[in-house]
Amino acid sequence: MLFLKNDYSEGAHPKVLEALQETNFVKTVGYGLDEYCQKAEEVIKATFGCPDADVHFITGGTIANTVVIASVLKPYQGVICVASGHINVHESGAIEATGHKIIPFPSADGKLTAEMVETAMRENTSEHMVEPALVYISNATELGTVYTKAEIESLSHVCRKHNLCFFIDGARLAQAVASPASDLELIDFPSLCDIFYIGGTKNGILFGEAIVITNDAYKSGFRNMVKRQGGMLAKGRVLGVQFLALFEDGLFMANGMHAVKQMSKIVEILQSRGFAFLADSPANMSFPIFTISQVGELESQIALEADVVLPDGKQAVRFVTSWATSDEDIAEFERIIDGLESI
Amino acid sequence: MLFLKNDYSEGAHPKVLEALQETNFVKTVGYGLDEYCQKAEEVIKATFGCPDADVHFITGGTIANTVVIASVLKPYQGVICVASGHINVHESGAIEATGHKIIPFPSADGKLTAEMVETAMRENTSEHMVEPALVYISNATELGTVYTKAEIESLSHVCRKHNLCFFIDGARLAQAVASPASDLELIDFPSLCDIFYIGGTKNGILFGEAIVITNDAYKSGFRNMVKRQGGMLAKGRVLGVQFLALFEDGLFMANGMHAVKQMSKIVEILQSRGFAFLADSPANMSFPIFTISQVGELESQIALEADVVLPDGKQAVRFVTSWATSDEDIAEFERIIDGLESI
Amino acid sequence: MLFLKNDYSEGAHPKVLEALQETNFVKTVGYGLDEYCQKAEEVIKATFGCPDADVHFITGGTIANTVVIASVLKPYQGVICVASGHINVHESGAIEATGHKIIPFPSADGKLTAEMVETAMRENTSEHMVEPALVYISNATELGTVYTKAEIESLSHVCRKHNLCFFIDGARLAQAVASPASDLELIDFPSLCDIFYIGGTKNGILFGEAIVITNDAYKSGFRNMVKRQGGMLAKGRVLGVQFLALFEDGLFMANGMHAVKQMSKIVEILQSRGFAFLADSPANMSFPIFTISQVGELESQIALEADVVLPDGKQAVRFVTSWATSDEDIAEFERIIDGLESI
Amino acid sequence: MLFLKNDYSEGAHPKVLEALQETNFVKTVGYGLDEYCQKAEEVIKATFGCPDADVHFITGGTIANTVVIASVLKPYQGVICVASGHINVHESGAIEATGHKIIPFPSADGKLTAEMVETAMRENTSEHMVEPALVYISNATELGTVYTKAEIESLSHVCRKHNLCFFIDGARLAQAVASPASDLELIDFPSLCDIFYIGGTKNGILFGEAIVITNDAYKSGFRNMVKRQGGMLAKGRVLGVQFLALFEDGLFMANGMHAVKQMSKIVEILQSRGFAFLADSPANMSFPIFTISQVGELESQIALEADVVLPDGKQAVRFVTSWATSDEDIAEFERIIDGLESI
Repeated sequence: MLFLKNDYSEGAHPKVLEALQETNFVKTVGYGLDEYCQKAEEVIKATFGCPDADVHFITGGTIANTVVIASVLKPYQGVICVASGHINVHESGAIEATGHKIIPFPSADGKLTAEMVETAMRENTSEHMVEPALVYISNATELGTVYTKAEIESLSHVCRKHNLCFFIDGARLAQAVASPASDLELIDFPSLCDIFYIGGTKNGILFGEAIVITNDAYKSGFRNMVKRQGGMLAKGRVLGVQFLALFEDGLFMANGMHAVKQMSKIVEILQSRGFAFLADSPANMSFPIFTISQVGELESQIALEADVVLPDGKQAVRFVTSWATSDEDIAEFERIIDGLESI
Repeated sequence: MLFLKNDYSEGAHPKVLEALQETNFVKTVGYGLDEYCQKAEEVIKATFGCPDADVHFITGGTIANTVVIASVLKPYQGVICVASGHINVHESGAIEATGHKIIPFPSADGKLTAEMVETAMRENTSEHMVEPALVYISNATELGTVYTKAEIESLSHVCRKHNLCFFIDGARLAQAVASPASDLELIDFPSLCDIFYIGGTKNGILFGEAIVITNDAYKSGFRNMVKRQGGMLAKGRVLGVQFLALFEDGLFMANGMHAVKQMSKIVEILQSRGFAFLADSPANMSFPIFTISQVGELESQIALEADVVLPDGKQAVRFVTSWATSDEDIAEFERIIDGLESI
Repeated sequence: MLFLKNDYSEGAHPKVLEALQETNFVKTVGYGLDEYCQKAEEVIKATFGCPDADVHFITGGTIANTVVIASVLKPYQGVICVASGHINVHESGAIEATGHKIIPFPSADGKLTAEMVETAMRENTSEHMVEPALVYISNATELGTVYTKAEIESLSHVCRKHNLCFFIDGARLAQAVASPASDLELIDFPSLCDIFYIGGTKNGILFGEAIVITNDAYKSGFRNMVKRQGGMLAKGRVLGVQFLALFEDGLFMANGMHAVKQMSKIVEILQSRGFAFLADSPANMSFPIFTISQVGELESQIALEADVVLPDGKQAVRFVTSWATSDEDIAEFERIIDGLESI
Repeated sequence: MLFLKNDYSEGAHPKVLEALQETNFVKTVGYGLDEYCQKAEEVIKATFGCPDADVHFITGGTIANTVVIASVLKPYQGVICVASGHINVHESGAIEATGHKIIPFPSADGKLTAEMVETAMRENTSEHMVEPALVYISNATELGTVYTKAEIESLSHVCRKHNLCFFIDGARLAQAVASPASDLELIDFPSLCDIFYIGGTKNGILFGEAIVITNDAYKSGFRNMVKRQGGMLAKGRVLGVQFLALFEDGLFMANGMHAVKQMSKIVEILQSRGFAFLADSPANMSFPIFTISQVGELESQIALEADVVLPDGKQAVRFVTSWATSDEDIAEFERIIDGLESI
């Protein structure tokens, strides 16, 4: 069966496994204080051009979001994000579990705007209301869209104006930057936001994310928070070794570019057959629309996520490509599409 | 430098890395619903003789403890454990972060007794006090001691008498069972307690623990809790593959037995030179006592944990062996001890 | 200055103060286990026709909501309510502080419908999402509207269908039932919901609310929760004495009816002068619309809450009446309205 | 029956009820922003000699402790206190409910020492441990003992040395200061600690405590925290009016001195009959020791708290006096003691 269900269907890029193998019997201290984590931190800071940042490696995305938000906010403060945001929908209430409210804004394309932030600030002024103090976005978004540099700058500006922490969830950061729709480069992120995290799990390693803190105000006590929230590994080196492999020879962006390129082929195949989409698909996710019976046919041959049923009775599905999506997969995809009875 | 600092200084047992390599390009669904996790669950249930248990794979020990305790307790309930318990001392307040109080009992050997549980029940009866509702022990303990079957049975009995959940932290379960001081077997655990976890991180895999729930009352909603607390991996298969490798050919107990055997050699070397110990060392940790100047000498050649300074001015240190401690390491250890100037 | 700002501008109804005076030197045990609390519980159970309910007196509305919700929900569960709900907007994140997410639905009239509940159940089925487990409404609502019996029955039905706890915040319960728009009687509440609270603060006592639990499933451990959340008074009798005074001679409904009657006069005065309203005002709150300059004039003579500015540039204000709003106040109101320059 | 069970058995001092009566129909704004709260704040700041302090009125002691501690601490920080501390034993886990660990020290007389604080700082240095950041004491203590000025100064010094917040729970502050064993005056508190609260509930008002923040670092966002934790009253004036009555004519210290004087008579009666005590009783609580059969006799005539059973089979009981304990009560007490069969 063809897998277009997500970007975490396989293990790791071979170079990452190799690095784990090669370093396996080197003995190190625990909890991320080892030499591999240190080297990985250095190469990340060099890649992103932020020599003074703090970098923390953490087991996964939910816990990265939780640790950052719980670390930054005072108990009576909350988070501004779009209603479709990962933290608002798909983390089983992990943010609320740390005692903080999410203030959600509906957004058709999954992107937050400076206007939404202004609204949040205007509407939540009473001491009986949660005080907005952190802006959360993900890039790429949950809908596969990507932010332009101007959009991020606009958010950055409004955050500074209101003294809000600006936090970017980069679970799919490489895929966003690799997108032709994006005019952002890696080195733009440190100065535009206060904290961001670099997605590893969805970009070719077994698991793990790297949190980058560029604003000094948020650096203190962070390791205590990681431990308290359960995100610290005894064998922290396992994360350091993987991120080192990901960043040493440009694998990080290479993986992201591959995923985006393979998705662009899928989109082209579908567009040339006249299929419509729920939204633009500039990164490694697309949401094409099929008839219900087509979705049934597809599901027997492709592992996918069925998505929203539209008013006209058709249904969107979600396709995702990864660093591991091969040209054979694309050819197989084309064959399946052309074999749809009801095309 | 010789490493006796802990049992998580290396990567993983070669068979575990091999399994990750072999399965790397098999595509699976995410979040621990894949075939490897299912097979690992089956082999664990067979090994422990608990066909009706639920098994959950989770990223680490702190989060295993957090998820279990937060899942079992009502908000106004608390945990009984020894003062030296891992959850009470070394998890940065992770349990309290979920809203629950720990009710600690001092214990010279790191073991909890049924009498302590009875005291907790007798002293905390008012509705103004936290209601004790879960008993936490670890086996082996933080002091490297191990429980006998009679001791565990006694705790099991008192828990049932008072309707308390009995939870065993098995971060070093293999090492405890492998100890000559232990008359417990793996198949004893499911019927003696309600929930236990099987340590992987400290017994030869890259990371991960397996939570086994044998009491039906605690099964519902557990995956939601794992997700909420941040312990669920997108590539859950990484845990399944590793635990499968650990349990398929008896590697789990073999690793534990190796660590215990190597520690017994270290203890013998020290005892034959007349060194005293803070406590018995039946599993893979020992706490020998040296003069301050000897500790200084040792630290230049062995990565170790310095421990408590005693009233007579001497100091205990902690040595830990693992599945990877070699006979060459032991020979090196003997050489270092015999080379101590002040012996 | 005329006060129409809220229904908690004065102290207590004279009969309530009298009761505090009369009982002042009677010595009782603490924490709500005294005879006054017991008698008040009995008279409340008789008034509402629920002899088997548990009644708990608590210091205020926010903490009543917090204790009920934190007591009922498992950690990974959440609350369904309207976006304008008090718990969602005006409690500084008190619900999230207990670790629970609120799932809000926009509602023009401030009322929740069974359809919204069905939507919440349909959309939140994944274990990665918060599981909806409690439905919260307030009656009267934050917009001053009141539920009909059919509406409440419909919510009750959908809650039972999905095994949801149905909780009614009755901070203004007397005013809702007293409204001519309501066909509900006090005795309807126990069988229609699982837990409700009876507002005292806004209906003539110094402070305090009475939580009534009619579903046995939610009774256990409740006092521990009240203590844990800080809602238990040492001199619990102060609440018992006040609620006894409120319920002994029908003062509860008399106060509510007075407030509603005085508001109906205000509405009549405004309607007869052609003023429009943001919403119907069947209980003790109204939201009439004025020009900005009229609002300015009013604010110099009436303590009021300015509310939303409308697209046409006019502004709504909130007027509230209470058990203490006198006929002189109404006459004064009429004089002020007729004196508006810009009428 | 004679009541020596606690200092919250009656309502309020008549002057407090009078003040509530007199101000009952004055209309004010809500939530503690009214003129009575402002005046009470002024008179408290004048009484304690701290013109720059912030004063917040709150419903009760548990919630005062919760709000202060949750407001001051970062998530990974904890509280140092004695094992018998109110927050550690009698608040149903309210502090842990806000996510914070309590680090308890056994203390025979219920007092914390600077040495204990030093030990806490020495033992909790790892980032895997909870970071001690606040020192909590109560004066008078749970055992009825009182601190000397030198003891408080010593704690103050160690707190400043380690940058710890020093918080004094003054639920029985008047009784402590009124004690002949105390050389502290009210004006000493603001400069010796960072935050303290002034007990109202146990010193003659219906309910309520006044939190005084003297260290500017802890002032910001405090009202949001009070609201979030459920400690804010809609009719905040009820607290302001009561505290104003308590502080206007010296009633606060007069009440405390009366309670202490009446207890000294009880102690004298018992000492002159040869009864022993568990501890010194310099304030308004004593813990005399009786035979079990005497305790039985006493309980039929006096409402009291039975306390610990001693190794010799005898039992301590707790007697408490209040502002309302009359000379007739004392005479009655003497009659009961002399009537004990087994004296």
